[in-house]
This record gives sequence, C-alpha cells and structure tokens, in this order.
Amino acid sequence: METVAEADALARRVAEHLLSREGTGPAWGIEIEEVREGYARIAMVVRPDMLNGHAIAHGGMIFALADTAFAYACNSRNVSTVAQAASIVFLAQAKAGERLLAEAREQALSGRSGVYAVSVTASHGRKIAEFQGLSRSLAQPVLEPP
Amino acid sequence: METVAEADALARRVAEHLLSREGTGPAWGIEIEEVREGYARIAMVVRPDMLNGHAIAHGGMIFALADTAFAYACNSRNVSTVAQAASIVFLAQAKAGERLLAEAREQALSGRSGVYAVSVTASHGRKIAEFQGLSRSLAQPVLEPP
Amino acid sequence: METVAEADALARRVAEHLLSREGTGPAWGIEIEEVREGYARIAMVVRPDMLNGHAIAHGGMIFALADTAFAYACNSRNVSTVAQAASIVFLAQAKAGERLLAEAREQALSGRSGVYAVSVTASHGRKIAEFQGLSRSLAQPVLEPP
Amino acid sequence: METVAEADALARRVAEHLLSREGTGPAWGIEIEEVREGYARIAMVVRPDMLNGHAIAHGGMIFALADTAFAYACNSRNVSTVAQAASIVFLAQAKAGERLLAEAREQALSGRSGVYAVSVTASHGRKIAEFQGLSRSLAQPVLEPP
Repeated sequence: METVAEADALARRVAEHLLSREGTGPAWGIEIEEVREGYARIAMVVRPDMLNGHAIAHGGMIFALADTAFAYACNSRNVSTVAQAASIVFLAQAKAGERLLAEAREQALSGRSGVYAVSVTASHGRKIAEFQGLSRSLAQPVLEPP
Repeated sequence: METVAEADALARRVAEHLLSREGTGPAWGIEIEEVREGYARIAMVVRPDMLNGHAIAHGGMIFALADTAFAYACNSRNVSTVAQAASIVFLAQAKAGERLLAEAREQALSGRSGVYAVSVTASHGRKIAEFQGLSRSLAQPVLEPP
Repeated sequence: METVAEADALARRVAEHLLSREGTGPAWGIEIEEVREGYARIAMVVRPDMLNGHAIAHGGMIFALADTAFAYACNSRNVSTVAQAASIVFLAQAKAGERLLAEAREQALSGRSGVYAVSVTASHGRKIAEFQGLSRSLAQPVLEPP
Repeated sequence: METVAEADALARRVAEHLLSREGTGPAWGIEIEEVREGYARIAMVVRPDMLNGHAIAHGGMIFALADTAFAYACNSRNVSTVAQAASIVFLAQAKAGERLLAEAREQALSGRSGVYAVSVTASHGRKIAEFQGLSRSLAQPVLEPP
C-alpha cells in the first residue's frame, strides 16, 4: 500500500516528466516549486515577450501558467488526464519582471472528472487571477512502472 | 456620422496598433486576417515550443490565441477594453504545423460590459475550442484622434 | 434518409417529451416557442417567487431558464445528453412580470461533446444574460422508436 | 474597531435580511446553516418540482442553490454586491428527498471584484457540483446602520 510520502514523490516525478517533454516548459520558463497528490505550485517570470499592447502580462500567458499548474495537479496520481474546460477571472495586472506563482488545489474528484482551483499571485500574495479547471482522466499511466 | 466602412476601417487600425505593441504578437506569430466592428479573425501556426508533454498544442496557447482575437474584437470601437473573465472548452487536439484560426464575434454589449464568443478551428473547420469572454471598457480611446 | 423537416420535427417532439416529464417545467412556467435540430427557443415569465432580495429576477432562475433551453437543444437529435459544465454572464436586471426568452444555438459538436451558446433577452431584445454550456451525450435515445 | 465576532454576526444578519426579502427563499426552502465574513453554508431539500425529465435534480436548481450561497458570502461585509458571472461543473446526480449543502468560500477580493468557490454536496460529502462566481460590489450597504 502506497504511503502519503510515496504518493507525493510519484506526483513530483510525474510533473517533472511532463515538464521535461513540454515545448512550452522552457519557452515559458516554468519552474516547479512543489507537487503533491492533487496539488501543484509552479512559478514563471513575466518577460517582455509575454506582454500585451498595454505593457502588462497578456491574459493568455496568465491562463497558460494556471493551466500548467492544473495539468501537474490533475496528472499527479500518474493517471493520464486532460483539460476539458476551464474558466478564469482576471483580478489585477502583472508587469515585466514580476515572478508569478500558480497554486493548483483539487476541489473534487468524481469518476473520471476532476475539478481544480488555481490561484495566480504576484509578490506579497497580490491576486492576479483565479482559475477553475475541469479534467477528464484517460485509462493509461503517464509514467510506465519501472 | 460614421459609416459602416469607416467603423470597420477603424476597427482594423486599432487591432493593428494593438498587435504592433504586443510582445506576444511576434512571439506567437499572430496574423490578423480580418477585423470589423465587434469582430476579429486571426491565425497562428502551432510550433514545437507551443506543445505540451503529449506533443499536442498546449491548452494555454489555444486560450492565448482565442484571447487575442477577443481583445481585437472588444477594442474594435476604439474604446480601451480589458478582459475581465473567460471560459473555454477544449474539443480536439492540434499538432505542430497546424494553422489555427480564432474567430471572435460579439454576443452582447450592455453598459461597460461585453460578451464575445470565439471559435478556434483547424483546417476544414475542425473545431479545436470554444471560448467565451467578458470584457469591461475603460473611459479612454486606444488610438488618439489624428 | 432523414430530411431537415423530419429532423426538426423530431427535435420538437423530444423537447415536448422532456418538458412533459420535468417537475420544473410547470413549476417555472416554461413555454416552448421553437425547437429545431441544434436549436431551442423557450420563454418564462418572471414571478414574485423568482425574485431575489433586490426585487429582481434571481440569477439562479435566469440560469435555470438558459439551462433548460440548452437541454432541449443538446437533446434535439434524440440522443440522451446531459450538461457537464456551464458558464453565465449577467448583463442586466429583469423584473417581475417580464417575459424572458432563452435562445440556444449549437456552436460545436465533437465526439460526445457539444458546446451551446444561450442568449437570455427581455422585450425589445434587451440582453439579460449570455450562457455557454458543455454537453456530453450518452449512448441511448430520449424517445424510443415507435 | 470591529472584532471577528462582530464581523461574523453582521454577516449573519445580512444573510438573514437578504433571505427574508427573497421570493426564492421560501420557494426553494433555503435554510441558512452558517454565515461568516466571506463564507456561507446553506441547505435545500430536493423536491419533485425541482426535478428534470430524467427524475434527477435540475441543473438550474443546483446552480440556484450555489448562487444563493455565493450571494450571502459576497454580501457578508454589508456592502451590496451582485453576481457578474459564474461557472459550474456538474459532477453527480441528486434525487428527490436529498438534502444538498452549498458552501461558499471567498477566494480573492481585489477592488470591487470578488471571486468565490462554492461546493455543492449531498450526504456523506458526495460532490454534486463545483461553482465559481465573480462578484462586483456597489457603493451602498445592504443593512442601514441602526
């Protein structure tokens, strides 16, 4: 029987595996801070090529960061899982050079569906966006057993 | 009094102005196909640095494309307008090399709020995602009068 | 092979069948105006028992009306289909005595998933809300063949 | 300066005031279980007139319950606040006679905007739906000072 520590270590390995295969990981400078079963916290620094015409972080990049944290959290049990739908509320602006955190928490699991809330914050906890994602699991592992 | 043709020409100039100032425009390879009052259609080719760990277009990039079309449509009357919230449904996968279209249509305007539907499609009209955005206008123009 | 007229007639019969079995149909005073394949338009009059503490139509009732139109549209091909997720934007208030229309249009079908946009309007086309729903079809008919 | 206990007592009075003026409160049988600053938990028993054509609770009623908890939580500081947008994921069915709980928690406040997550559960914590709401505050109190 799997312990909590083993489950959390597996969750971390799955996230690192996913990141290592993502073209977007290096393109966006994604850093994994912490991943546990049903949970992920990642970071990204806003660069000039992530800004919109108002010189603030493009909503698409804020969503992309939240969506990445969502992916790591919903794949954390090593069951391949995809995003089916998501919604986001934009609360405040972020500027170039700011380091954004996205923290994904599992709200519900029911059959093959899961719901995750992701908060995106800047320094001092300033809220940038709130995201909610609906996932659907597939009948296959992310990482093959060793 | 402004004619339809003038309104549409202004909408196009606003979108081109926004694109010219976006860091994300060249970073994502955004092309404007058509912009009219309350409407925008843009394109983006999926590149390897836009793929997730399953080698398909990252949901964040699909959202980013839709969000960009939404921005051009909701700023089309030359009133500076920001995204307040959005939701997206992912319907099918897109691969590297595919050219994606995002077509934004105005569904409703009420006071300072607007609602836009954006369809993201690949070749032959294959549906990739459906997006809905809520905008809020600010009391200032995008382009200053000449 | 089914004609358009036959498809539309089937859509209407399915909606009438669903309405006849809904506890909410008579409770809410739902009227079917038009149902075709992938489309439904229904009406509801706002009553005092549908008002919130500000004496305007409760958001829950506006959603309920939109969700009902969505159900008739997504079941219109006589394949039993359920709502999986939805989002709504509230644009204007509605008062007691107002007759609200909800018009549902199919935006996309892909495999077992469907996306529908529903506009809720009051008289003279005043926009009350915009709704987007994600449906999932089940492998069974609503109406058994005669 | 207001204590936590005073803030929570005010939140409760505001919710009871709202409920007392809602036509929907008695129509839906809403019961307030607990209200604190930024938090509300309410209950509703599913009745036959709340069922859809599949003899399960209509999605509109599940949304309506969640939306009511959202309203009590976002008005809890005695600043009149309205729903601007919401999204919901439906996870499991509920039958007639089931008592549903809706628990609303504040996720973020930023200027006049607020984001709230609402979980709807049946007995033994079975998840029925997850809701996320965006609120906008108005510059007036719900309850006039005594």
